Amino acid sequence: MMNNKPYAVGIDVGGTTTKFGIVNRDGEIIVQDRLPTNSHELVEEFINDVYVKLMPMIQNAGGIENFAGIGMGAPNGNIYTGTIEYAPNLRWKGIIPIAQLMEKKFGLTTKLTNDANAAAMGEMIFGCAKGCKHFITITLGTGVGSGIVIDGKIVVGHDGFAGELGHTIIRPGGRMHKSTGMRGSLEAYASATGVRDTAIEKLQQFPEKDSLLRDYSIKDLTSQTVYECAMRGDKVANEIFEFTGEILGESLANFVMFSSPEKIVLFGGLTKAGNLLMNPTRKAMEANLLPIFQNKVKLIFSELKEADAAILGASALVW
Amino acid sequence: MMNNKPYAVGIDVGGTTTKFGIVNRDGEIIVQDRLPTNSHELVEEFINDVYVKLMPMIQNAGGIENFAGIGMGAPNGNIYTGTIEYAPNLRWKGIIPIAQLMEKKFGLTTKLTNDANAAAMGEMIFGCAKGCKHFITITLGTGVGSGIVIDGKIVVGHDGFAGELGHTIIRPGGRMHKSTGMRGSLEAYASATGVRDTAIEKLQQFPEKDSLLRDYSIKDLTSQTVYECAMRGDKVANEIFEFTGEILGESLANFVMFSSPEKIVLFGGLTKAGNLLMNPTRKAMEANLLPIFQNKVKLIFSELKEADAAILGASALVW
Repeated sequence: MMNNKPYAVGIDVGGTTTKFGIVNRDGEIIVQDRLPTNSHELVEEFINDVYVKLMPMIQNAGGIENFAGIGMGAPNGNIYTGTIEYAPNLRWKGIIPIAQLMEKKFGLTTKLTNDANAAAMGEMIFGCAKGCKHFITITLGTGVGSGIVIDGKIVVGHDGFAGELGHTIIRPGGRMHKSTGMRGSLEAYASATGVRDTAIEKLQQFPEKDSLLRDYSIKDLTSQTVYECAMRGDKVANEIFEFTGEILGESLANFVMFSSPEKIVLFGGLTKAGNLLMNPTRKAMEANLLPIFQNKVKLIFSELKEADAAILGASALVW
Repeated sequence: MMNNKPYAVGIDVGGTTTKFGIVNRDGEIIVQDRLPTNSHELVEEFINDVYVKLMPMIQNAGGIENFAGIGMGAPNGNIYTGTIEYAPNLRWKGIIPIAQLMEKKFGLTTKLTNDANAAAMGEMIFGCAKGCKHFITITLGTGVGSGIVIDGKIVVGHDGFAGELGHTIIRPGGRMHKSTGMRGSLEAYASATGVRDTAIEKLQQFPEKDSLLRDYSIKDLTSQTVYECAMRGDKVANEIFEFTGEILGESLANFVMFSSPEKIVLFGGLTKAGNLLMNPTRKAMEANLLPIFQNKVKLIFSELKEADAAILGASALVW
């Protein structure tokens, strides 16, 4: 049995950055580091870079015999097969047997899952969904990720790919998603990219409206600048978060009527907007729920740092 | 243990009609009957009518000692509490402890669940989802009901009310649902009532278009007449099914990206339309799925009669 080992490795493979850490049984990340994900055309070179940074950390913690294994979260990571399959935001194309390659390199059992599912496991074991058996996590970052927990288990579906809520359609015929080509998906609106696109649209659509946002070049316009302008009382910037929250809230209502979760945990960069985003989101969610679901769902922000949740959740795969 | 008893009772409480039957361990309904659901203001009077019809059937099958119990499916039926809660289509208002009342009357253990979940159980145990661990059933009747199965278990959520997919919003700001007051829900379009409303809308919207449907008074216009006209080659009637299938298919794509089911089983009155409905539904579903989900989901019509599925599924609650 590996379960008496004191440590596990957690790795969060993101579209831009890969973060990894050594986690003890109390859910503490005792050491962590990061490296760029997409600087290598070959996954073997990426794994080599991880090895060069991670192996000394493992040695400092007493070597691989002290480790239960490696847990990884990655976009389109499949828990059944240990492969990353056709991930649109990664350079490694096709089907990548990353768990197997990691096992060979490190000599440690390696488990893989979807990055958003890893974050949901982090919330369930160490975060604000501790002890909760029915919840959904939504990551509002560059994209919109999701992890769904029902009866204390991550929903992976018949093929391991369930839980792609960012790609559900909430505005049929609406805004085109640049990488999927779909129109009106949640991710086209409720992501950092979506907020930026909404800002550009609103500034063009209402040329008569004054806004601090007009001081920025389109290049410098980000969800962060929209947030800063909103905090300075800019009306257009505020409307952008209201619009974003409205669409997010409508989507959340649909998700609630699917699995009736006790909690929905939001995290990712966009949640820095706090009540600017939370208030319109909650209002739209409640307005679109059947009465039997109203005023029941706890809609909250995660208290874990985004990277921590994914590292912790990934590490939990091997316990 | 009750599990060596040869029979169970299955009861399907519908908005209009309640159907009940005696089921053996092979999933055969050996005798069945029905009565109107809403002719009584008091649930006790309804239970009394069920008793008068059902008890002789039980006696003929050797009396209650031959029965494992009674399983019931009802709108807003809650498996955790055995109560029907605020069902909009039933005359009994508030919270009705129907399982407890049935137990007292019959002296048999009684289990309750949502009517659509009972139908899903029927499909799982006796129907075309036999042996399938990840599927969704959608009932296209007067309303749109749904039962979701993940890992071989019906999804009921933290409070017992999960799986109200007919009330998810697919056309924000769209058609008003007469009983919920919500705009743009799936049920407003993909139900028998929805098909009728679409017909009325299309006839008014395009007064220049010839159609056999114009021979019917609005009172006589039903999903059945639309079907008959479509089968006679009427173009407008065909467009009505195409429109309905498009909205249904878009919704199904959203559901697939939630739980990644292996199968989606459609049943209910509207499925009589066969390929008129199936073809546009499948096309719209596939067009709205991410590539990793495309051409994987088996979209099929149930082979069980609707009432049989619910009676069989309800009876299975007690085994």
